[in-house]
Amino acid sequence: MKRYETLAADIGKAIEDGTLQPGDRLPSVRCTSDTRGLSTATVFHAYYLLEARGLIKARDRSGYYVCTGAPQLSRAPLLARAISNDQVLQDAFERTVEVVARTDEGHMVPFGSPCPSPALYPLARLAQSIWTTRQDLDPRRIVEVLPPGHNELRRQIALRYQSSGVSVGMDEIVITNGATEALNLCLAAATSPGDAVVVESPTFYGALQALERRGLRAIEIRRHASEGVVLQDLSEALVRHRPTACWLTTSFQNPTGGLMPESKKKAVVDLLSRFDVPLIEDDVYAELHFADRRPLPAKAFDTRGLVMHCSSFSKCLAPGYRMGWAAPGRYIKDVTRGKSVTSGGAPAILQIAIADYLKQGGYDRHLRKLRRTLAIQQEKLLGAVASHFPSGTRATRAAGGYFAWLELPAGADAMKIHAESLTMGISIAPGPIFSASREFRNCLRLNYGHPWDARAEQAIALLGTIAAGRIRTMHSDIVGLAKGEMHNAAAVSLPPAARAAVPCEPRG
Amino acid sequence: MKRYETLAADIGKAIEDGTLQPGDRLPSVRCTSDTRGLSTATVFHAYYLLEARGLIKARDRSGYYVCTGAPQLSRAPLLARAISNDQVLQDAFERTVEVVARTDEGHMVPFGSPCPSPALYPLARLAQSIWTTRQDLDPRRIVEVLPPGHNELRRQIALRYQSSGVSVGMDEIVITNGATEALNLCLAAATSPGDAVVVESPTFYGALQALERRGLRAIEIRRHASEGVVLQDLSEALVRHRPTACWLTTSFQNPTGGLMPESKKKAVVDLLSRFDVPLIEDDVYAELHFADRRPLPAKAFDTRGLVMHCSSFSKCLAPGYRMGWAAPGRYIKDVTRGKSVTSGGAPAILQIAIADYLKQGGYDRHLRKLRRTLAIQQEKLLGAVASHFPSGTRATRAAGGYFAWLELPAGADAMKIHAESLTMGISIAPGPIFSASREFRNCLRLNYGHPWDARAEQAIALLGTIAAGRIRTMHSDIVGLAKGEMHNAAAVSLPPAARAAVPCEPRG
Repeated sequence: MKRYETLAADIGKAIEDGTLQPGDRLPSVRCTSDTRGLSTATVFHAYYLLEARGLIKARDRSGYYVCTGAPQLSRAPLLARAISNDQVLQDAFERTVEVVARTDEGHMVPFGSPCPSPALYPLARLAQSIWTTRQDLDPRRIVEVLPPGHNELRRQIALRYQSSGVSVGMDEIVITNGATEALNLCLAAATSPGDAVVVESPTFYGALQALERRGLRAIEIRRHASEGVVLQDLSEALVRHRPTACWLTTSFQNPTGGLMPESKKKAVVDLLSRFDVPLIEDDVYAELHFADRRPLPAKAFDTRGLVMHCSSFSKCLAPGYRMGWAAPGRYIKDVTRGKSVTSGGAPAILQIAIADYLKQGGYDRHLRKLRRTLAIQQEKLLGAVASHFPSGTRATRAAGGYFAWLELPAGADAMKIHAESLTMGISIAPGPIFSASREFRNCLRLNYGHPWDARAEQAIALLGTIAAGRIRTMHSDIVGLAKGEMHNAAAVSLPPAARAAVPCEPRG
Repeated sequence: MKRYETLAADIGKAIEDGTLQPGDRLPSVRCTSDTRGLSTATVFHAYYLLEARGLIKARDRSGYYVCTGAPQLSRAPLLARAISNDQVLQDAFERTVEVVARTDEGHMVPFGSPCPSPALYPLARLAQSIWTTRQDLDPRRIVEVLPPGHNELRRQIALRYQSSGVSVGMDEIVITNGATEALNLCLAAATSPGDAVVVESPTFYGALQALERRGLRAIEIRRHASEGVVLQDLSEALVRHRPTACWLTTSFQNPTGGLMPESKKKAVVDLLSRFDVPLIEDDVYAELHFADRRPLPAKAFDTRGLVMHCSSFSKCLAPGYRMGWAAPGRYIKDVTRGKSVTSGGAPAILQIAIADYLKQGGYDRHLRKLRRTLAIQQEKLLGAVASHFPSGTRATRAAGGYFAWLELPAGADAMKIHAESLTMGISIAPGPIFSASREFRNCLRLNYGHPWDARAEQAIALLGTIAAGRIRTMHSDIVGLAKGEMHNAAAVSLPPAARAAVPCEPRG
C-alpha cells in the first residue's frame, strides 16, 4: 500500500468508527504533513482520494470536512427478508419492460435509468476511430468477423485482464452483442430447461428475464447490500436444490451498488467448485471503482474453468455499441458455437473501432475522469436524499458504479411511488422488479450517472415528498386514496420531510 | 408486362425450347425493331435484359449470340433423392463450422464463401454516414436503442416493403443482429424443444444448426433446384409429422440459387395456413434479382400473420454491419421480447447510419450496379464450369443471388473434392453440409460473388480436374488411394476433363 493510501485508510477508519464525526473539520494539509512526516503532495493525494470516495468534502478557503449523505448501510446491512426458493418465473419480462422503457423517455429525470449519461463517454472519439480505421483496411477484413470475434479486440481485452491480475488469454474470450448476450449464452451452456439456478436477492432483473425465457427455476438467496451473498444461504441452496448454475454480480451490483469483498469472492468460488456448479459472473461495473484499484472478479480465483466471466464496454466506454464478451472457462466451445448459431458475428466495424481506441491508450485517462465524475454525483445525490427523504430512510454508498439503493421505512410502496413519480416527469426503479418474489416493496434504485443540476435536486425533493406522502397515506387516510389524493401527493399538505438521521451540512 | 419484357420473354422461350440454339446469332436490333414494330431502344432493353440473365452475349461488331454455360437445370429438375424424415440432429454445427471457417481465409479462391466480395458494397459511404450523422445527434439518441429498434430505420424498411408490394408496417418490424438472429428468434417463438420443423433439402446449413441447438426434429422435404419445395411432400409432412413450423428460403435459395415462383409461394402459404403452421421465411437474397422486379416474398400472400419474414442488409448493402430484421406477423411480441432478453438492442450507431443511407436515396442505384455485376460474374463462372468440368455435370443458372449449384456425375464425392481443393488454395461448399441426412454427396455450391479474373478461371479448371480425377479414383483404382494419390490428383495423369454437354463458345 502506498503512503497516501495508508493515510486515507487511517482517516477513513476514523470516520467509520465515529472518531471523526460528520461536519468535523480535518486537520489542515500542512498540519497533517508535519505530524505524519509526509509531503503535502501525499496528504493532498490522500484527501483527494477520500473526497472521491465521498467521505470528505472541500469548502472554499476553509479546508476539508467530514461529509456524509445518507447513513451508510455498512453499519446496518440490508438483507432480503424472505428467501423465496424454487420459483418458476411467470412474468419477469412483463413486469419490468414498461418500467425500463419509461426511463428511456428523453424528458424524464432519469433516476430510474439503467445507464449513465452518454455525455460521459468519448463517443466522438470512437466515431473517429470508425472513420479513420476503415481507410487503412482491406475490405475483406471489415466485413464478416466470425465468432469468437476480432483478434485484436480480444487481445486488448486479454491485456486488461492481465493488468488487473486475472489470467485470461485472448483465446478464452468470445465477443458478444453486449454483456446481455454473453450472460444468456453462458446460461444456455450451463443449464437445461427445468434446472434450478441460484440468484442473489435483490438481483438484476435481466437475470430473472433470462431464467424465465429459458424455463429455469430461480433459487433466490439473501445478499447483504454491501457485501454480497450470504454464504450460509448459498451452501444450503446447493445442498437442497442441486442447482446447475449460480448467477451473481460481484462488483458494484445492480441494484444495490454492493461490492463483494475479494475474500468472499474466493469463498464463493471455492464453495461452488466443491459442488461443481459454474458461476455466471456479471461484471460490467468493475471498471467504475472509486478506490484506487479495480476489484478482482471472482474469475481471479477460478482454478477449474468454472467461472464464466461476462462484461462489456457499454458502461465504461462505448454505450450503444453493444460490445460485450464472455470468458466462459471450460464452456468456451459451447458459448462460441451458441454465438455463431443464434446471432452470427458481432459487427466488425465496431469491434475494430474499439480495438483501435484501446490500442491508442486513452482508455485509462477516460476511466479516471469518469470515475471521479460518478463519485462526485454520488455525493450530490446522497446529500439530497439525506436532506429530503423521510426519517428512517437508509441508502447504500457504493464504492463504485452509479447506483444507490434506498430502503424506505416499512409501509412505503415503491410501485406506487414509481407510478406517481412518472406523472411528475421523474423515473425511478422500484424494488420489486429486482426480485422474483417481489420483495423490496419499500426499496428504490436511484441512478446517479447523470449530471447533477437544480432539476435533479428538485426531483429528489419531490421524490422525498412523494415517499413521505405515500407512507402517510398507507398508514392513515384510506379515504384520501379514493379521492385521488394519492396521485397528487405534492399538492397535499404533508408533514415536512424529516431529515435523515445524519445531517448533510457540516456542523461547524 | 412492358414491351421489352414481352420481347425478352419470347426470345427466352425460343432459347428454352431449342428454337434458338446455343451459338446462334440473334436477329440484329434494327431487324427486330422492324419486324416487331418496336423502337430500337426497346429491343436494346430486351437484349440487355437477356444478357443480364445470362441467356445471350454480345460479341464486338458482330451482334448478340445465344450463349450458355452449363446446361440449364430447369430442363432436368434436381431433387433430393431420399426424404429423410424426423431426424434429431447431432452434429450439424461441427460438420459445417470448419468448412465455413476455411472459406474465410484471405488467400483462398473463395468459391465456397457464403458472402460476395466486400468490394461490391458502399462501405466508405456508410462509414461516412456514421461520421456525419453522429454530429447532428443528441448523445442520448445515439446510445441505447431498445428493441424493436430505431424508428427511422424501421420506417425505411417498411417503405421498401410497401414499394415492392408487401404490406408490412414499421410497427411489425424488429431489428436484429443479422438475419441469423431474426431466424433464431422466430424459431424460438414458434417451437418448443422436441417439436418437428419442416426444412427443404438441400437447405441452408444455418437452419440445421438452429434446429439442432434448439433440440428440434428436422423433417426434410424435397425441393426442385429451380422451383422450390415439392408441394406434395409438404402436404404429406404436415399430415404425418404435425410440425410446428416450416423454414424455407423462397428466393435465390442458398445453396441452389432457386427462385420459388410466386404462384408456388402462395400455394405454400395457403397450405401451411390450413394447418395453422407458421412459415419462417429466410429472404436475404431477394434484392439481388437479375430480372426487372424484386420477386414477391411468401409474406405477400400472408393473410393471417403466419409468415415470419426475415431479412438483412448483409447481402445487399452493408456486409459486416449485422443489421437484420424480422417481420414476424402474429409473433411480433414474442420476437421483440426474445431480442430484449437474450441480446438487448442492436448497435444504435449502425442502425442510424443505415437509416441515413436509405433516406439519401442511393440504395437503388447501388443495387442496380450490384445486380449487373453478379449477373456478369455468373455468366463467367458457368462458362468456365461448362469448359472445364466433366461431362454429365449439371448446374443451376439462378435468376438472382450469387450461388450456383452443381451436380456432378454419380460417384463424385464432394467432401473429398472439398478437402483436396483446400490444399490447392480453393474453397468450395460441399453438398452434404446442406442436408441433415448428408445427401448431395455429388453436389457443390459455388459462389460467383467475387471478381472474375484469370486466377478464378484457373481455379475452376483445377476444380474440374479434381472432380474428374475424383470420379476416376472412385470408379477404378482403389489402390491409388492407399498410395496417397487422392491428395495429389492434379499431379496425376488424368483423362482431359470432358466438355459439358453444351459447349460454351458460340458455334458460328
